[in-house]
Amino acid sequence: MTRFALTIEYDGRPYMGWQRQSHGPSVQQALEEAVTRITGEEAAVHGAGRTDAGVHALAMRAHVDIAKSIAPFRLMEALNAQLRPAPVAVLACETVAEDWHARFSCLGRAYEYRIVNRRAPLTWDKGLAWQFARPLDAGAMHGAAQALVGRHDFTTFRSVHCQAESAVKTLDRLSVSRHGEEIVIEAAARSFLHHQVRSMVGCLVLVGTGKWSARDLKAALDAADRAALGLNAPPDGLYFVEARYP
Amino acid sequence: MTRFALTIEYDGRPYMGWQRQSHGPSVQQALEEAVTRITGEEAAVHGAGRTDAGVHALAMRAHVDIAKSIAPFRLMEALNAQLRPAPVAVLACETVAEDWHARFSCLGRAYEYRIVNRRAPLTWDKGLAWQFARPLDAGAMHGAAQALVGRHDFTTFRSVHCQAESAVKTLDRLSVSRHGEEIVIEAAARSFLHHQVRSMVGCLVLVGTGKWSARDLKAALDAADRAALGLNAPPDGLYFVEARYP
Repeated sequence: MTRFALTIEYDGRPYMGWQRQSHGPSVQQALEEAVTRITGEEAAVHGAGRTDAGVHALAMRAHVDIAKSIAPFRLMEALNAQLRPAPVAVLACETVAEDWHARFSCLGRAYEYRIVNRRAPLTWDKGLAWQFARPLDAGAMHGAAQALVGRHDFTTFRSVHCQAESAVKTLDRLSVSRHGEEIVIEAAARSFLHHQVRSMVGCLVLVGTGKWSARDLKAALDAADRAALGLNAPPDGLYFVEARYP
Repeated sequence: MTRFALTIEYDGRPYMGWQRQSHGPSVQQALEEAVTRITGEEAAVHGAGRTDAGVHALAMRAHVDIAKSIAPFRLMEALNAQLRPAPVAVLACETVAEDWHARFSCLGRAYEYRIVNRRAPLTWDKGLAWQFARPLDAGAMHGAAQALVGRHDFTTFRSVHCQAESAVKTLDRLSVSRHGEEIVIEAAARSFLHHQVRSMVGCLVLVGTGKWSARDLKAALDAADRAALGLNAPPDGLYFVEARYP
């Protein structure tokens, strides 16, 4: 068996999420079926993270074990040929040690969230960004966000379906910047709770409109209570952008 | 009658182009029908340029005359509501003098062309960029492009269907830059011939692969002969980005 590490870009719009689901298509299933068509082998593709329905990836990392002898470049090309026309592309493929694990070896994950801050509806970005009509103060959002950085109980920002043992996580970075009509929120941590990024983004948007102060955001964190959540952002604008390994 | 100037963004994928066509949907028709639904008036929407089938716009300018009394902001909101779910958005709307003409008052036009230079197929950018697998040397492309800047007979880079009286045009700017895996080509002129940007981009790509030298590109221009064209780029990557007025 050879273990291959993959770097994968995907448009989450047509998928129920990364993980295989009985009730609809998933990115994992698309990849596993492509591997099987190439190798004739049953395949399990393990990802660095599990993105929700409608969430995208610029660079998801994953691994898969294959018995058949195949060069990484040929595997990448064959996967892209088999995946077509699904909006999933393998950007890189390399062989790794058999104890390298896309999920358990991962030291850090990063997400980006795109908000298009304008009144006009989206054209090519439909489902690829959150269109927000009222003006947002990105500076105020960035300032308030710094209260969330560090080690905290993130219960407020955690889905009721979250399966993590503990809600205590260390958020390494949460930055907000404006680029014309677009606001980009970058979040980095060893790992995130279910819905954590979308929940943080939703509350930052309340700060951006002036409905919440920086103090209100801090109070919501300190409450450690899901009921203190102000707003959960839609999946549209969320992108898995990086998984870091030793 | 009041004349309104519009700034319009559109995804060209579902359209036969800007201009009304008997054989399929156009951006012009979508806008004219939206105006008629709002005002009950027959409407003619005049654009700064005529983009081809599959070509996009970040900021097309256009004008329309309306008898009914309506504030520019309300017209913009109503147009966006009527256009939905078409991938056409009105970004700005203002009243202008009755002799202001989107096409004839325009002093300069700018286009951008996006190439995604990678082997992997496109995901969300399908139809929104030209995927080109072989490595491209953006520096060589930029250098060679400078021979096209200035006043020249652009017959080589002109579609056989071009209706312009003369093929002599002044190209103000043609720049090529790389941003990661993406190559952006920016072109600015008072006006362009039919297919001129796509034809220039196609030949620059030949330079980028090393198949053509900068001298070959110059020779193709000097030939002033459509048969000297090396390659016409697909519409996918082309965006109308700016129309300049006094």
